[in-house]
Amino acid sequence: MTNNKFEFLPEIAKLGHVALVSADLEKSLLFFEEVVGLEKTVEVDGVHYLRAWGDFEHHTLSIQAGEESRVDHIAWKAKRPEDVNNFAALLRDADVVVEEVKAGTEVGQGDSIRFQLPTGHNFEIYFVMDKPEVADPKRKAVLKNQTYKAWRKGISPRRIDHVNIATNMPASLITDFLMDKLGFKLREYVKAPNGDLLSGWLSVTNLVHDIAVMSRPDIKTPHEIHHLSYWSDNTQDILRAADILTENGIPFVGPGKHGITQALYLYVIDPGSGVRLELFSSGYLIFEPDWEPIAWDLSDMQLGITYWGEQAVAPDGPEPTINAGATLEVITK
Amino acid sequence: MTNNKFEFLPEIAKLGHVALVSADLEKSLLFFEEVVGLEKTVEVDGVHYLRAWGDFEHHTLSIQAGEESRVDHIAWKAKRPEDVNNFAALLRDADVVVEEVKAGTEVGQGDSIRFQLPTGHNFEIYFVMDKPEVADPKRKAVLKNQTYKAWRKGISPRRIDHVNIATNMPASLITDFLMDKLGFKLREYVKAPNGDLLSGWLSVTNLVHDIAVMSRPDIKTPHEIHHLSYWSDNTQDILRAADILTENGIPFVGPGKHGITQALYLYVIDPGSGVRLELFSSGYLIFEPDWEPIAWDLSDMQLGITYWGEQAVAPDGPEPTINAGATLEVITK
Amino acid sequence: MTNNKFEFLPEIAKLGHVALVSADLEKSLLFFEEVVGLEKTVEVDGVHYLRAWGDFEHHTLSIQAGEESRVDHIAWKAKRPEDVNNFAALLRDADVVVEEVKAGTEVGQGDSIRFQLPTGHNFEIYFVMDKPEVADPKRKAVLKNQTYKAWRKGISPRRIDHVNIATNMPASLITDFLMDKLGFKLREYVKAPNGDLLSGWLSVTNLVHDIAVMSRPDIKTPHEIHHLSYWSDNTQDILRAADILTENGIPFVGPGKHGITQALYLYVIDPGSGVRLELFSSGYLIFEPDWEPIAWDLSDMQLGITYWGEQAVAPDGPEPTINAGATLEVITK
Amino acid sequence: MTNNKFEFLPEIAKLGHVALVSADLEKSLLFFEEVVGLEKTVEVDGVHYLRAWGDFEHHTLSIQAGEESRVDHIAWKAKRPEDVNNFAALLRDADVVVEEVKAGTEVGQGDSIRFQLPTGHNFEIYFVMDKPEVADPKRKAVLKNQTYKAWRKGISPRRIDHVNIATNMPASLITDFLMDKLGFKLREYVKAPNGDLLSGWLSVTNLVHDIAVMSRPDIKTPHEIHHLSYWSDNTQDILRAADILTENGIPFVGPGKHGITQALYLYVIDPGSGVRLELFSSGYLIFEPDWEPIAWDLSDMQLGITYWGEQAVAPDGPEPTINAGATLEVITK
Repeated sequence: MTNNKFEFLPEIAKLGHVALVSADLEKSLLFFEEVVGLEKTVEVDGVHYLRAWGDFEHHTLSIQAGEESRVDHIAWKAKRPEDVNNFAALLRDADVVVEEVKAGTEVGQGDSIRFQLPTGHNFEIYFVMDKPEVADPKRKAVLKNQTYKAWRKGISPRRIDHVNIATNMPASLITDFLMDKLGFKLREYVKAPNGDLLSGWLSVTNLVHDIAVMSRPDIKTPHEIHHLSYWSDNTQDILRAADILTENGIPFVGPGKHGITQALYLYVIDPGSGVRLELFSSGYLIFEPDWEPIAWDLSDMQLGITYWGEQAVAPDGPEPTINAGATLEVITK
Repeated sequence: MTNNKFEFLPEIAKLGHVALVSADLEKSLLFFEEVVGLEKTVEVDGVHYLRAWGDFEHHTLSIQAGEESRVDHIAWKAKRPEDVNNFAALLRDADVVVEEVKAGTEVGQGDSIRFQLPTGHNFEIYFVMDKPEVADPKRKAVLKNQTYKAWRKGISPRRIDHVNIATNMPASLITDFLMDKLGFKLREYVKAPNGDLLSGWLSVTNLVHDIAVMSRPDIKTPHEIHHLSYWSDNTQDILRAADILTENGIPFVGPGKHGITQALYLYVIDPGSGVRLELFSSGYLIFEPDWEPIAWDLSDMQLGITYWGEQAVAPDGPEPTINAGATLEVITK
Repeated sequence: MTNNKFEFLPEIAKLGHVALVSADLEKSLLFFEEVVGLEKTVEVDGVHYLRAWGDFEHHTLSIQAGEESRVDHIAWKAKRPEDVNNFAALLRDADVVVEEVKAGTEVGQGDSIRFQLPTGHNFEIYFVMDKPEVADPKRKAVLKNQTYKAWRKGISPRRIDHVNIATNMPASLITDFLMDKLGFKLREYVKAPNGDLLSGWLSVTNLVHDIAVMSRPDIKTPHEIHHLSYWSDNTQDILRAADILTENGIPFVGPGKHGITQALYLYVIDPGSGVRLELFSSGYLIFEPDWEPIAWDLSDMQLGITYWGEQAVAPDGPEPTINAGATLEVITK
Repeated sequence: MTNNKFEFLPEIAKLGHVALVSADLEKSLLFFEEVVGLEKTVEVDGVHYLRAWGDFEHHTLSIQAGEESRVDHIAWKAKRPEDVNNFAALLRDADVVVEEVKAGTEVGQGDSIRFQLPTGHNFEIYFVMDKPEVADPKRKAVLKNQTYKAWRKGISPRRIDHVNIATNMPASLITDFLMDKLGFKLREYVKAPNGDLLSGWLSVTNLVHDIAVMSRPDIKTPHEIHHLSYWSDNTQDILRAADILTENGIPFVGPGKHGITQALYLYVIDPGSGVRLELFSSGYLIFEPDWEPIAWDLSDMQLGITYWGEQAVAPDGPEPTINAGATLEVITK
């Protein structure tokens, strides 16, 4: 990246939230509020703004009703206030269509921009977001550095962790964009025998990944989401989640441990929207500024995907995904 | 910070290592290798270079014999190769004495600089550090993103986490320096009724703290270290550590949970050097670029220090610390 | 024990329940139902019958209002239906006053007997007890061998574990009675330099103790209860309990690990009745029929009481206990 | 059972040990000592006597070399010294061939008897067994109620838990024998649509099972062993075991949670002998004297076998088992 225009190149600070549209809102709310145990910050105009007990910002998941389940956008918080506009300028320079979204369009959020990856996945970048105190004093944490009391109900993960998006186009279309335009760093990846990148794990934070990208030739559109993920402090919490899901009659895959990311996982599909949720714990952090991306090929990828436990990826065909973007025609003008 | 000289201001990427001098080397090695379970990368000229199974760099702790136990320096990895020299220039501009240390002085490490905080604590900044593969194939992890097999012996923490330094001078002398000269961000702090900063937790990473600073009027010198800390993935690992320490006849404080950092802790003193080790797990990460430092005052500090469990801080007088720097005369010229 | 009268000597099978009278019923229910998370089987005539999600019988704790908080009785399930009458006969032979209690006096329970230990502690023995299914299908476990879904709210322990009673008379008055009249086996004990038994841990099951007995010269009556205890499957659950209690503003002691029993503990006092609850996990089981009771003396008792963690026993004076029996005059005729 | 001959009917107190013959002794020792982390009490005449750190008796597993891997016998400790002879008399009355084995034949063990189930599985009953102190003071636990320091190496389970045996004859041949001749109680079972018992879980202790019995029409002999099991205190320990096994290149099945027994499991095959080891934690205890055996049928057995996690039983054909007895011809005279 060159730096002709700005004092600082704009940067992404973190994954902000996922905006979910559900074909069965009631079921989705039951799942995310009662079973997963997310807290509701507020409901405005049919949009339910949720966050985990350890999330600081206004929401990390919004859910509203819609005819077809889809992810409307995945939002990222910029590092500085001016980065929102600076990203807009940089993206327009690269012929990306950028839509400006007025403050308040999402409750709690300031001015933001929306645009699409070359695959049509809808992204949003914002900086200003309320960090509202908990209204009900009974649910407010006694700790000053924690939002809600933990463990009120259900699985009760601490915070949002990452998203995993899938495309039937070359995955490198996305990973190149994430690295070149948005400043993500590649942490681990799987490559085909011909050298093509099949999957990539990238981050702007010390997490191994804020986003993963998967090439899935058999999915319906180029802009699908494979899962969003919330994080729990201890692997024991994931075993407890397995009990809770089974007792609620909700099927899932796992627990197992990924080699890539080294995290304990459990995959469960929201019965309302069909979006997949990964419950996630443990794993490693990357503090190294000179990190060399870890390369996995097809011969060792099995260990990378499932270090142990129930297979993370169904062996017998495509896993369901849901649409996370516009059609490709729209976005390339 | 203004930016007249460099394209980028130099930045710290992470805590690198602690260089420990022990008055009883044998006991210290027994403690850190057999009880804590760190791995030895190599021993050269009486310096034992150790790291945890999940540390990537050549060493995160070095131990050598000396007449008096002390921490020779605390080392930080810069973000870019040129940052080492750029930090040297910036520090000299601020009248800090900077010593240049040739590559290889520490095994595995490139050119580095050493200097002192206003309190005399010795710091080192480096960029180049080997990330050696494990020589013994039996101890090498099967995972590509992990250095050693975990759980070989003892407590077996994953990685170095942070240091906590103490001074009998105003703590703000250190925190101001860390923020102004080295780019640390204040995450949480305790302030006296008169507004003075008593303790601060600061980081350059997403960890709540890479370094904590404590004002301790009763300690011997202005440049002491309260503890260094290694991190384990699960709180259960800390309970297992408590079993291991008790069975080895080594006293400790904890387990307990800090309010500040929200981490489970256990404090144990190396019987060889007297340096305190904090075994640490759980806690929270800060991804917010607009983080407002959490202020604790004396009325709520009790919850901040010990959310629950055995008191982290002895109520009846000063806790032992060891010297982590030169005398103040030397460093201020 | 000789066996002239019966084909089999009567035997105790297990701890059944504790009947608690609370001076502040509302607070006690809030504590045991909302914070601890016990389930209510039914309320009849002001008596609230509670059990944990993994308890099979009708109740393991009953709570009713009373002017003064106390434990009305501690109930034990006999091994065979005829054991209730046989115990009555054996006890009367030993000049113990035995009261017969009609089926239904406690909801769900058949005919039982009540009597007092030589210290005046009130005991009950029953055999018949309903094992009612969960009425609300939403709370019924999907597993056939589990009563309720776990993790509905609060700490959510699995089952009742043991009681700990205290006396200001010689502890051996109780332990001798438990062994000679009721068939308990001594598992571990603490003895004074003069050979007197100070504390004893006894069981009829494979648990290290179904009941512990402590000599406490400074307590108010000879028939006090120190605590009742519920068991959680994993030590991690006890750490989670510590979070929940702290967030609810309820003080507690622990976590720590006993040497005697080897269990992780956390002691918390019901704000309504003042009875102490021990949250308990891990520990060891005794399958050996030729078990030699473990003897601890004052020199090693510290390790026995608190292997590590926050001291289980307050060092500075008597811990509060509540009355668990009649006055001694009554019971000795 | 009638009681004409004895004051007390003889009773089994607990599972004692498994005597393993391995076709590759070196590999088996590497597995059980280095990877599983059992302790060696002693080696005498090529027989390696092992136990876990929390086992009290001389050995819970013995391993010796042999041409073909097999379990020589499964040993049970009687409740009283005279029970060994009394069992012999009762069994002979029922036309079971009983072999008397002199004290010292197994190191540490007193006089015992050996006999076969109707399926040919070899059982042993003993009462006297040394509980030797740990010779090496460094490995001796500081706790008086624990044998070795825990966590010396490898997975480090606490104690032996149960055995699971399989037959290609009707399982009821075994379960009837266990209940009628040896006093086991049926805790849970799976029945075929025609009412036949397919699998049974039985115990003499408060454990859900000391022994499980499975009908497996496709196995080689009527007297096979499916697995032996060691117990760990916390489910987290099983996840740690999964790391250790994977890093040692040893495949396994799990982790998963059984519905029947409610325990977390992980199945791994000893590379030396081919015997399967189940690493086991959590689960429930049965204290009820009036326990009604839990009946599972084929429609709900899936939940019973695998409540969640990786399937405990391979769906595609017979799992390997090893011989645990004589041929049927021999034993029925």
